[in-house]
Amino acid sequence: MNKQLKYTADGLIPAIVQDASTRRVLMMAWMNREALTLTVTENRAIYWSRSRGKLWRKGEDSGHVQKLHELRLDCDADVIVLMVEQIGGIACHTGRESCFYRVFENGDWKTVEPVLKDPHAIYAEHRHE
Amino acid sequence: MNKQLKYTADGLIPAIVQDASTRRVLMMAWMNREALTLTVTENRAIYWSRSRGKLWRKGEDSGHVQKLHELRLDCDADVIVLMVEQIGGIACHTGRESCFYRVFENGDWKTVEPVLKDPHAIYAEHRHE
Repeated sequence: MNKQLKYTADGLIPAIVQDASTRRVLMMAWMNREALTLTVTENRAIYWSRSRGKLWRKGEDSGHVQKLHELRLDCDADVIVLMVEQIGGIACHTGRESCFYRVFENGDWKTVEPVLKDPHAIYAEHRHE
Repeated sequence: MNKQLKYTADGLIPAIVQDASTRRVLMMAWMNREALTLTVTENRAIYWSRSRGKLWRKGEDSGHVQKLHELRLDCDADVIVLMVEQIGGIACHTGRESCFYRVFENGDWKTVEPVLKDPHAIYAEHRHE
């Protein structure tokens, strides 16, 4: 599956993540070849964390796993879309459903969505499981 | 609006484009500061074409303008989402509604969506207008 894809010079490809039922865009992350292969093999979203420089099994710390429903590729073969089931209903590390919770209004970015769960609680709970 | 955003070393930010009514992801493109400012000012999607190295007023050659309905920013301030009205119902240069017309199935990328209009016709018609 990888040979047709166009990765960046760093070996990465952007992955747009959509909720399979609501079509809400939840986040965008990056994958390398290994992450994409593992995502398909394990049927859950696995990214490449650029900040940590390692594979990021989405949900490994939060429990908020993303189950893969469908994988799509664009015309230029350099962007993919993941349709997922978002376990826990929270994709963002701030405790919100989606990372895109700010809207540009009257010249500024306004937060328009609530925190569904305190991030400290999310990560603490999962550690105690 | 730009000062809060985190652009890449090349001065770009990825822009995910969604149909405002269906929430279908139509495409992903890149913007620089000028493109984003113009998008807001002109209320239509204007990107930075990396291949052509210049501003790309979406629809300038095809007529398939994207009217801006809403602009969103993610938690890391390094990705934006545009909710748009896609004039002509075609976002992709292949003549399809969305650039994401290939699905990964049985080990390969399968085209699952029809060409709505021959790309040659799209561009020829618009030139004659």
